[in-house]
Amino acid sequence: MSDEQDILEANAAFYEAFARRDAEAMDLLWAKTLPVACVHPGWTALRGRARVMASWRGILSNTNAPNIRFTEARAHVLGETAFVVCYEAIPGARLVATNFFAREDGVWRMVHHQASPLARADDEEEETPPPKRGTLN
Amino acid sequence: MSDEQDILEANAAFYEAFARRDAEAMDLLWAKTLPVACVHPGWTALRGRARVMASWRGILSNTNAPNIRFTEARAHVLGETAFVVCYEAIPGARLVATNFFAREDGVWRMVHHQASPLARADDEEEETPPPKRGTLN
Repeated sequence: MSDEQDILEANAAFYEAFARRDAEAMDLLWAKTLPVACVHPGWTALRGRARVMASWRGILSNTNAPNIRFTEARAHVLGETAFVVCYEAIPGARLVATNFFAREDGVWRMVHHQASPLARADDEEEETPPPKRGTLN
Repeated sequence: MSDEQDILEANAAFYEAFARRDAEAMDLLWAKTLPVACVHPGWTALRGRARVMASWRGILSNTNAPNIRFTEARAHVLGETAFVVCYEAIPGARLVATNFFAREDGVWRMVHHQASPLARADDEEEETPPPKRGTLN
């Protein structure tokens, strides 16, 4: 398989672990020795593996956690690292996420995740006008 | 200088171009040949240099664009790429951003940017409880 396929599989595995609330699988997906960070929607940045994994254990143990699925994932490979931009769909909301992977011991592992809500759930990708950042914020 | 210092300088240059509304400087900061993408707050993902730079020209030509400054930038180096997580402060709001850099022709250039608003402007970094992602979204 190509790197791109491997990375998209790792990205899919991330959402599978999320949807199944599988904290063990989630832990295995994240890099062990490389620096990791995570930005959950609306929250401050979590830096370091201990904080990031504690946040996932909290989220995945929440029985009210929403069903999640991803769409339109595209991988952008930069040698030994890559980033995937995709959308996340949960009931009633749509988010956009960047998932950043790096090859660690020959395996693509997650090193960073940032997800944030779209301003409108019905936005069509890349068909919106240029962002008016000043007025949005 | 170390890679980390170089990357933090590139990150600072990004915010300087943003604050000065300097579209030419912004253009120079972004990778020319590597894949680029950008997620402005609340908006769908922009993929490809043409779309990303068009969005910046729109933002930087907006005379109502807010003053922006960044805080708490930390660089996480992964060989020839790196990501910086930092906060963005504009009047009345605070955002969290990931800026992803890669070395291109010996220079650290931006390949991806995602910024998203914090749920509360007064959040203290890493002192919030684990995110309850199900209820936030």
